[in-house]
Amino acid sequence: MYNGTGASPGIALGKALVIEHSELVIEKRNISNIEEEIQKLENAVKVSKDELTKVKEKALMELGEHEAEIFEAHLLVLEDPELVDSAISKIRDEKVNADYALNEIKEMFVAMFESMDNEYMRERAADIKDVTNRVLRHILGIKVVDLAGLDEEVVLIAHDLTPSDTATMNKSMVLGFLTDIGGRTSHTAIMARTLEIAAVVGLDDITKKVKDGDYIVFNGDTGEVIVNPDEETKAKYASLKEQFEEYRKSLELLKGQESITTDGRHVELAGNIGSPNDVSGLIKNDAEGVGLYRTEFLYMDKEDAFPSEEEQYEAYKAVLEGMNNKPIVIRTLDIGGDKELPYFEMEPEMNPFLGYRAIRLCLDRKDIFKTQLRALYRASVHGKLRIMFPMISSLEELLSAKEVIKEVLAELDAEKIAYANDVEVGMMIEIPSAAVISDILAKHIDFFSIGTNDLIQYTCAVDRMNQKISHLYNQFNPAVLRLIKMVIDNAHKEGKWVGMCGESAGDQRMIPILLGFGLDEFSMSPISILPARKLINSLSYAEMQKFGDEVLAMGTAKEIKEYVDKTFNM
Amino acid sequence: MYNGTGASPGIALGKALVIEHSELVIEKRNISNIEEEIQKLENAVKVSKDELTKVKEKALMELGEHEAEIFEAHLLVLEDPELVDSAISKIRDEKVNADYALNEIKEMFVAMFESMDNEYMRERAADIKDVTNRVLRHILGIKVVDLAGLDEEVVLIAHDLTPSDTATMNKSMVLGFLTDIGGRTSHTAIMARTLEIAAVVGLDDITKKVKDGDYIVFNGDTGEVIVNPDEETKAKYASLKEQFEEYRKSLELLKGQESITTDGRHVELAGNIGSPNDVSGLIKNDAEGVGLYRTEFLYMDKEDAFPSEEEQYEAYKAVLEGMNNKPIVIRTLDIGGDKELPYFEMEPEMNPFLGYRAIRLCLDRKDIFKTQLRALYRASVHGKLRIMFPMISSLEELLSAKEVIKEVLAELDAEKIAYANDVEVGMMIEIPSAAVISDILAKHIDFFSIGTNDLIQYTCAVDRMNQKISHLYNQFNPAVLRLIKMVIDNAHKEGKWVGMCGESAGDQRMIPILLGFGLDEFSMSPISILPARKLINSLSYAEMQKFGDEVLAMGTAKEIKEYVDKTFNM
Repeated sequence: MYNGTGASPGIALGKALVIEHSELVIEKRNISNIEEEIQKLENAVKVSKDELTKVKEKALMELGEHEAEIFEAHLLVLEDPELVDSAISKIRDEKVNADYALNEIKEMFVAMFESMDNEYMRERAADIKDVTNRVLRHILGIKVVDLAGLDEEVVLIAHDLTPSDTATMNKSMVLGFLTDIGGRTSHTAIMARTLEIAAVVGLDDITKKVKDGDYIVFNGDTGEVIVNPDEETKAKYASLKEQFEEYRKSLELLKGQESITTDGRHVELAGNIGSPNDVSGLIKNDAEGVGLYRTEFLYMDKEDAFPSEEEQYEAYKAVLEGMNNKPIVIRTLDIGGDKELPYFEMEPEMNPFLGYRAIRLCLDRKDIFKTQLRALYRASVHGKLRIMFPMISSLEELLSAKEVIKEVLAELDAEKIAYANDVEVGMMIEIPSAAVISDILAKHIDFFSIGTNDLIQYTCAVDRMNQKISHLYNQFNPAVLRLIKMVIDNAHKEGKWVGMCGESAGDQRMIPILLGFGLDEFSMSPISILPARKLINSLSYAEMQKFGDEVLAMGTAKEIKEYVDKTFNM
Repeated sequence: MYNGTGASPGIALGKALVIEHSELVIEKRNISNIEEEIQKLENAVKVSKDELTKVKEKALMELGEHEAEIFEAHLLVLEDPELVDSAISKIRDEKVNADYALNEIKEMFVAMFESMDNEYMRERAADIKDVTNRVLRHILGIKVVDLAGLDEEVVLIAHDLTPSDTATMNKSMVLGFLTDIGGRTSHTAIMARTLEIAAVVGLDDITKKVKDGDYIVFNGDTGEVIVNPDEETKAKYASLKEQFEEYRKSLELLKGQESITTDGRHVELAGNIGSPNDVSGLIKNDAEGVGLYRTEFLYMDKEDAFPSEEEQYEAYKAVLEGMNNKPIVIRTLDIGGDKELPYFEMEPEMNPFLGYRAIRLCLDRKDIFKTQLRALYRASVHGKLRIMFPMISSLEELLSAKEVIKEVLAELDAEKIAYANDVEVGMMIEIPSAAVISDILAKHIDFFSIGTNDLIQYTCAVDRMNQKISHLYNQFNPAVLRLIKMVIDNAHKEGKWVGMCGESAGDQRMIPILLGFGLDEFSMSPISILPARKLINSLSYAEMQKFGDEVLAMGTAKEIKEYVDKTFNM
């Protein structure tokens, strides 16, 4: 029995297939036939390109544009003459074997890119490594497990899964993933949830402990993995699997249904997205809107300049139209903190989470802010737009941001450009000061959306990325819960609605509390929407109000979590 | 008219004396008489040592132990054979002049120490530079302005003042300081306030704009400086000076008096200190206790190991005895964040202010924590001790910290070591979550002390050191004021008292608000105590309560500050 991080829910039972990405052994040899070596290299490049083109098309069809882009990037590397031509020159000049020559060139480029203090360039290094290793395997005649040709059901076990693995594999034969490394947000974990394949990650050295053909049962929720279990355990897991599949089917039946408590309170279950490509996931999971569109990815995906008004307009329009008149909350640019742009230099800060970021930067750089607001209002005619400001800490900032909107609307009027008149303007509550004066702020907005990730972080003065103090970062923290309740009450007094777009909004343990507090909109990762609806449809608002009051009287996160677990049998 | 940073209050009128620390010009010469050059070097070292010994004694008598230590460090540098002997070898081996040889050795050492990633070593580099320049001036026969021999009243103008300048000068002849560089916490500013000499710092290039003999008037409060004013302005400043001196005299009369409002509410005016050496400043300013003894300096001043239980015991005992049974709040170790120890390696953190620090570190490293608690309880028999925990964010941490006290007391009991039975145990309120659950926390402590510097920082998610967003760091922030009021009310409901040890507690604009909120103890830099007493003795508690309520209804820091200024004519 091993324990890892549950990364994608589901129960799997089946035979293990261990994928080994063995180390490539490259030796330097002096060769006599130069042209033969060059031919070897060129053949391997050609075969690799053909493979990548196929993988790219498959990814585009099955996984969407974002995943396919990885392989497009790999193709571009192979088409870069600097790489292949340099390797050919090396073969010619030094009379060395093709694999040695290519490997040397690879290592030079990788070292160069890795040494750059730039996340984007470091990712390029990973691409170069990945694609040249593919060519090297072809030169060396090393076969890799052909995941596309899987013809029996298996539990895939790997150190980590590469984008190529997940894109090419025959998904109908894959029962689950187990990996040595990774956390809940690693590539493997995200792909597993997207593909609805059960997965446990971060198992340290499961590849060493399991061999092909071992029988595996595991729980993608709890992270429990058992190798070669006895019959009783197998039967237990088979029954769990059946329950889980029943549950998944019951979720399917909830599509098109309302999100409503047993005593008739409606709430809105929306999704968090980062790009127009994510709309398909929202529709598949029957989202009732978008509660958070993080526009920073639009900026982070650009390499050399801010996205133009036109580019932004197209992206916002695509989401508004794609969601068919459902409400879309678009958050204005939130960079700074841990999010950088390759073309916009920011001074290093001692505490970036307490620094120059989000609305602070936008109010300082109104040129950037106005371009985005113009694009947003222009797009507003294509659907139901809600604009949201991040990181507001004071009334002054909120009023300043609204002033910039006024300027932009005056410009649009002067240019006779149309925009919707019913755009709601709201702000995030993620800084304690905003929560504490939410009664005052509520008079000036149409809605609040509580960002629990940052709100917990600031309220408790805990960087959530810092492992040494992670025990202090807890969504059940009683101070955080009190602030959430205060914000909801203050907004309701002014007749405004309150959403939440932090991770807590999709958490099955938090939903009963938040529902009881009176939260109006829950925005979460699309995959959590139907489970949330199922839960809400089973709860009574009146009972949850009482439950919420009980929770508010408690003094520690531990006590609260235990009470939730006891009450809901979790 | 120039504007700088008001660094030490007071009005000065008088003639300018510009101190130039001119660049030393060192040229390499080939010399023939080696012994003569060595003699030159040795003479200069001897003269410098004699000077430093005198300066050190003067500093010890007039400024206290801490200032004197700087010159002790300088003496140690000159006694280090590595420095002087290396220079002598260089003269001999390379047949070069003494000043060139010494300067080369200096630069080698300075470069070596400066390159170390260690604040302590970088300070050593500054010491070496300072003291070798003194020797070099003697070799070169460069006279510096003799501040000890000043025989007429002057306003000293300098790029910056060195510790030697402030230690040696004839203070009775110095009307004020003006410097090009520095802020409110620079050496010049701190010394000016200690010596009660008016000063304005950060004037950019005042040394270039003023020449010896110019007539200067300036205001050390507002930072205004006027060069060669007309008679009317002179008269105005002379009258301001008189008022200021009247005020200073009226403060003298307050020594030994009570801090009490016109309607009879007593409050405690205490001082913040960093070492037992600061006790003299407390007594001079008639502090009614210590509201914050920052023990981290005891740890930061050590070079190679944590201070032993015995060393700590001696320091705590010195403060407790020195303050003659007045209450002393000693804060347990608060390192991490921006405070490091030379002998204790901490992992670099992305956001150190949201990281592993203070009580978080102490609860993780109970060995360190217990040593301090043992020393504190052992010292408790020598006075009136109050122990305070920093950076508590949850009830769990408070209870864990109290548990460690229990263990320590059991140990002391077993060892039959005496301790006081009336030690109060309290905690800082500097994290928003603690303020929000202060009703719960109040049941488990004897007192709170509000640390406004951090509380503002976390409540508004603003690093107070970050210049780009400093406009968001504001003590009048309405959310911060509400949290302060909430903490005081919650504590009073449980019959506990509340102090404040952040900078706001000594601020003349904040005192009326805090008094109205019901704050019981104000702890500040010793120099602010008598002005605070004067203000409090002039206010009515009942009126300030009304005033506090009015302030709490306001939505912006600007509105609140303007209302304070209007009400108190500031």
